[in-house]
Amino acid sequence: MITLTSDFGTPYPAAMKGVLCQRTDARLVDIAHDFPRQDVRAAAFWLRETLPYFPPATHLVVVDPGVGTDRNALVLRAGEHTLVGPDNGVLRPVARRLVGDGPLEAYVIDESRLERVEPTVESAQAHAMASSRDNAGPASNTFHGRDVFAPAAAAVHDTPLEALEECAFLEQGTIGTCVDCELPAATLEADGTRATGEVLVVDDFGNVITNVPGEFLGDCQHVVANGETVSAGETFAAVAVGERLATVGSHGYVELDVNQGRGDEAFGLEAGDRIILETAEL
Amino acid sequence: MITLTSDFGTPYPAAMKGVLCQRTDARLVDIAHDFPRQDVRAAAFWLRETLPYFPPATHLVVVDPGVGTDRNALVLRAGEHTLVGPDNGVLRPVARRLVGDGPLEAYVIDESRLERVEPTVESAQAHAMASSRDNAGPASNTFHGRDVFAPAAAAVHDTPLEALEECAFLEQGTIGTCVDCELPAATLEADGTRATGEVLVVDDFGNVITNVPGEFLGDCQHVVANGETVSAGETFAAVAVGERLATVGSHGYVELDVNQGRGDEAFGLEAGDRIILETAEL
Amino acid sequence: MITLTSDFGTPYPAAMKGVLCQRTDARLVDIAHDFPRQDVRAAAFWLRETLPYFPPATHLVVVDPGVGTDRNALVLRAGEHTLVGPDNGVLRPVARRLVGDGPLEAYVIDESRLERVEPTVESAQAHAMASSRDNAGPASNTFHGRDVFAPAAAAVHDTPLEALEECAFLEQGTIGTCVDCELPAATLEADGTRATGEVLVVDDFGNVITNVPGEFLGDCQHVVANGETVSAGETFAAVAVGERLATVGSHGYVELDVNQGRGDEAFGLEAGDRIILETAEL
Repeated sequence: MITLTSDFGTPYPAAMKGVLCQRTDARLVDIAHDFPRQDVRAAAFWLRETLPYFPPATHLVVVDPGVGTDRNALVLRAGEHTLVGPDNGVLRPVARRLVGDGPLEAYVIDESRLERVEPTVESAQAHAMASSRDNAGPASNTFHGRDVFAPAAAAVHDTPLEALEECAFLEQGTIGTCVDCELPAATLEADGTRATGEVLVVDDFGNVITNVPGEFLGDCQHVVANGETVSAGETFAAVAVGERLATVGSHGYVELDVNQGRGDEAFGLEAGDRIILETAEL
Repeated sequence: MITLTSDFGTPYPAAMKGVLCQRTDARLVDIAHDFPRQDVRAAAFWLRETLPYFPPATHLVVVDPGVGTDRNALVLRAGEHTLVGPDNGVLRPVARRLVGDGPLEAYVIDESRLERVEPTVESAQAHAMASSRDNAGPASNTFHGRDVFAPAAAAVHDTPLEALEECAFLEQGTIGTCVDCELPAATLEADGTRATGEVLVVDDFGNVITNVPGEFLGDCQHVVANGETVSAGETFAAVAVGERLATVGSHGYVELDVNQGRGDEAFGLEAGDRIILETAEL
Repeated sequence: MITLTSDFGTPYPAAMKGVLCQRTDARLVDIAHDFPRQDVRAAAFWLRETLPYFPPATHLVVVDPGVGTDRNALVLRAGEHTLVGPDNGVLRPVARRLVGDGPLEAYVIDESRLERVEPTVESAQAHAMASSRDNAGPASNTFHGRDVFAPAAAAVHDTPLEALEECAFLEQGTIGTCVDCELPAATLEADGTRATGEVLVVDDFGNVITNVPGEFLGDCQHVVANGETVSAGETFAAVAVGERLATVGSHGYVELDVNQGRGDEAFGLEAGDRIILETAEL
């Protein structure tokens, strides 16, 4: 199985699928292609929270603001999973989560030794273009998802994990020198009454997902969020429709939500904002 | 085959797919994940009009404003199809449509006997969180799609229809006590000159889909919609580009549309609005 | 393999998938369903640039502003690929690209000889509707994707390419009489200093894709676009974040982009706008 993740919208992911289907019979499963544009941290968060629900697979990840620069293209082996994508930190948080007791290994893709998938091309103009500036190298300068990462993912998928180092286009690397995107941790007071953290992401429902561990809420009935007291509940339905609440979301973190509404609008918060939570006695 | 329907946007459906792929080799087909948020009636309509085109399958449906409350989690068998989702009415209209001459049976999911899929987890913090508030029970309180409905759908898919009652996590229920979402029917005058109905949904094209049966239009060349006379035509192209018309849509209902434009904006109508149609002689 | 392309949004593509799954076990791959509404040219461009990356397949394409009119429904064989869709030009640019050294053949779908997929229907009202106006013919007047193109694509997929003419619902046609959508070509001055073209499409990143061949940029460090001088670079990163540039995009054409921003907004351009590029010496 190969999963696909990008910030491409449409139809660029389809070109990657075409390349994958040229090279492998692997099952393809989309994670998302509408992640916030060029937002490495958001993608790193969502991958870390989503991919661990999958069976062993090859995960193709292309959120790549540095496409065309000299950033490396990576293959990470994390236990029974492999991750293919740019060396910009997006792969490492989920690699840590997926590795289990297995090996965590880094390989660098040597584009010059990777066989690119050429499109069917017929016209004289197209042939002329194929020899022009942007195709002079082994890949376009703006679409490595199609020209580098997809063919690499197909090849990796069809290679036994133990034989990755034998892939002609892979060079053994060092995980420690790969770019990391450590998601920030919240700071908790020793007495458990106060947590200082930040908003990691806002989901499509408008739920504000913080980095404060869910256990902070304990059995509180209320919590003070950036100075405002709101109900703490185990379910959205703990408060009336349209009311704000703090709850433990499906990722295990404290979320600031609205029952059947948008928490981001009600709390005036967005990704990256600072959040201070305090336990409240009413 | 398992179809997936939700109002999740992205990337939450991917977590459900991961869980499904952990448990079954079933083919996965997305119906939609961008249905109007927590709108049981809209989802019920679209499912009723879409799923009957599928061969026998398991249909996973998670539009669930009551997640975390004591609403039941259901498996409905409707002929050769099975439906898995919350007991809030979303499943019943399509169940009626799918049942054919087969049995219509209801089962209630006992979450405590359902084996949840645990994510790959490595860190000490994650292990700590796994024992905290939101994971104390068998499922998160906010994401039953991943923790309850997906594992249930995988198990149901791999169980012969006749043996559903033998699933350890299913208890025989009574269809009559399940929540229903009856889509409203239009009222037609006996002489066929007037229909009083409402807008069921607006589709992505802006077509205003009413609950007035298509036969109401008969051979009319015009119809009066909420007091305004518009052309009635068999195709969008019966009127000029940008012009309004009434036609019989692909669901068999009268639609108020604009040729290559948005009917909802032109008619000023949205889901739930009242609509009075009268035959017009010009 | 059957690929699916439309401007339907959701959930209409799912009804096509249901029909396909009723008739064939073919693998289904989505290209896009959010193409600009009823924009034949945009779809023709994206298909031409995307489908050549796929292995031989059947491509179902429904961007069909003339649905319900007397426009033909086509099957085109282009080498090892087949294309199924309306005769409005959307299929021909990609057919030219896909044909390679193989045959380019046109077939017209005779709807009256095509076996439509009937939905599961149970109610008396639904049965009554099935005999009413919109179901009187072999297909709804507004959803040929479900009622004509999907069953045709399934049948074509399961027919050897050499035997297409034996499909009962296909009549041999003439490619020359099919509607064409020739994407406009840019005009280049003989001395290579000036190109007059237009914006073909704007992608989801906001990149402005022109029809000026990439070789026009040559080794220029700057280019004058509609009178304004901007940097020319091989990668987005050739300029600072937020800066404008001209580059050769992944399709081989000159694009006007912003590094990590939206080129369409920065340049004030949209599809169809005229663009004059001049080489600049600074």
